[in-house]
Amino acid sequence: MPPTLDILGIGNAILDVLARADDAFLAARGLDKGAMRLVGTEEAEALYAAMGPGIESSGGSVANTCAAAAALGARVGYLGKVANDLPGQVFGHDMRAAGVAFDTPPLVGGAPTARCLILVTPDAQRTMNTCLGACVAFGEDDVDEAAVASAAVTYLEGYLFDPPAAQAAFRRALRIAKANGRQVALSLSDPFCVGRHRDAFRALLRDGVDILFANEAEIISLYEAPDFATAAKAVRAEVPIAALTRSAAGSVIAAGEETLLVAAAPTQVVDTTGAGDAYAAGFLAAHARGLPLAKCGRWAALCAAEAISHVGARPQTDLKVLVGA
Amino acid sequence: MPPTLDILGIGNAILDVLARADDAFLAARGLDKGAMRLVGTEEAEALYAAMGPGIESSGGSVANTCAAAAALGARVGYLGKVANDLPGQVFGHDMRAAGVAFDTPPLVGGAPTARCLILVTPDAQRTMNTCLGACVAFGEDDVDEAAVASAAVTYLEGYLFDPPAAQAAFRRALRIAKANGRQVALSLSDPFCVGRHRDAFRALLRDGVDILFANEAEIISLYEAPDFATAAKAVRAEVPIAALTRSAAGSVIAAGEETLLVAAAPTQVVDTTGAGDAYAAGFLAAHARGLPLAKCGRWAALCAAEAISHVGARPQTDLKVLVGA
Repeated sequence: MPPTLDILGIGNAILDVLARADDAFLAARGLDKGAMRLVGTEEAEALYAAMGPGIESSGGSVANTCAAAAALGARVGYLGKVANDLPGQVFGHDMRAAGVAFDTPPLVGGAPTARCLILVTPDAQRTMNTCLGACVAFGEDDVDEAAVASAAVTYLEGYLFDPPAAQAAFRRALRIAKANGRQVALSLSDPFCVGRHRDAFRALLRDGVDILFANEAEIISLYEAPDFATAAKAVRAEVPIAALTRSAAGSVIAAGEETLLVAAAPTQVVDTTGAGDAYAAGFLAAHARGLPLAKCGRWAALCAAEAISHVGARPQTDLKVLVGA
Repeated sequence: MPPTLDILGIGNAILDVLARADDAFLAARGLDKGAMRLVGTEEAEALYAAMGPGIESSGGSVANTCAAAAALGARVGYLGKVANDLPGQVFGHDMRAAGVAFDTPPLVGGAPTARCLILVTPDAQRTMNTCLGACVAFGEDDVDEAAVASAAVTYLEGYLFDPPAAQAAFRRALRIAKANGRQVALSLSDPFCVGRHRDAFRALLRDGVDILFANEAEIISLYEAPDFATAAKAVRAEVPIAALTRSAAGSVIAAGEETLLVAAAPTQVVDTTGAGDAYAAGFLAAHARGLPLAKCGRWAALCAAEAISHVGARPQTDLKVLVGA
């Protein structure tokens, strides 16, 4: 059967709270600039109390990708766990308003919807502190078999390896996708996340990931490689398509024998939150249209540039116009 | 006694939800572009369901002014009514994190914290739909006598004339300020708001408003004048200082015999939400430092330009650096 969805995303459903902070604020709290770390409820409350004024918006890495891919015209669905609370309702509204099908039942009577406290420093870098909340309740049963079977690409979020029950869900999604002749994409999400789950990520690649998204630090960490070139060579042997991002240096797409260098699109950098998510959206939306890899890389670069030109992870301009779709 | 606060703001405490919309969306719902209208809970729910993905941030006209004035170094307090809910906690956090003293007790067991659904059209205009919620519970008792007596300027939000109990609160605040030799500033907020409360606004001016903020449509509506020049002449006879904004044409400051023309500061216009609020912040913060009117107008223009250069009403850059304070 032809797929009825272009992309089905599976990830942590999160409300972002973005605030400006200076380097001293990060240093005083021992925060690694540019990284994501997991925090408990009490630590999140203390950090929030100390943070500057915030802007709230729906986030979550793969959820951001899904919203942007839908804006580009792709047929998109999403699986992720919110709670039955106000942020959960806002998350659901924002997904559906973006044109993404989202029907995972919310968690009732448990932890609240996940929050990510994001500190944006004057150099436009974002440092993330995630309180997983209801996301820890996402499990195998939340993997909608019909949805996975109907999606050309199922896109898995590396961060979803952190909640304990989600690894089994990932393996189930991969099995269903493969049994139905569909593709699987994976984002490595964060170098520390790779460090926590290196073996599981490597196993997942070998089990049939078709498209891998990673930045330089993540792919080096995955292979514990001495440098980017070594890591890029290793991933080429394991994954049919690897899109490796290098910030202002653009990206490298390794596909079998083929290597494409994609320039970053010029823009004023305001906040890097969501850059990688938008990159994946542009890539997957162009891929869904059957466009050649060079075009996938171009759409990816344009969407990443849009994301970093404003505060917040989700698109604020018309992406179809931006890429000329 | 010398004042211990430069500015005490009194207004509707609101959570903003901003989303992009096209002109057809406004037309289909009979919405007046650029205006604010009041909506009930059911209408707000229906509009939210139809709206695009949103960005949430603390808003409220005078609350926005207070946050920006504090960022400019002024000593600022705020009075306004939120509910004891998550948006109310977010509002309180954002005010205190901005450096604004905010201690109005939240409403318990009543309506939720006010929301304003803001539709931003491609021409960067914002159209606002406010569900007042807990704001209607703001009354005379919430006017903290010691705070008003200690503030050099008490700044009243015209929109606060809409909740029924707030007009008495306004008159009480004005009495206390005047009895303590303090100044009172007023924003007319919106031309339709002026139409609803014209006589009450005119009475308040005569009772001793020292500084008035209004845009062209508002001041014309206040005096039911045939044109801007006629309205400007009328207000000059009633108020010591009137700062009259004219969008891209800059502003006119009328102060007794004196007239100052202030140019708008150049910027790329993304979203006009909060432009007037930021203008008032720049003006009042410079006024608090005893700067001359030309400088008050310059700070006002710079802050307004910052506000319209991004999505959302509150400042996203360092305002002190911006104005050279």
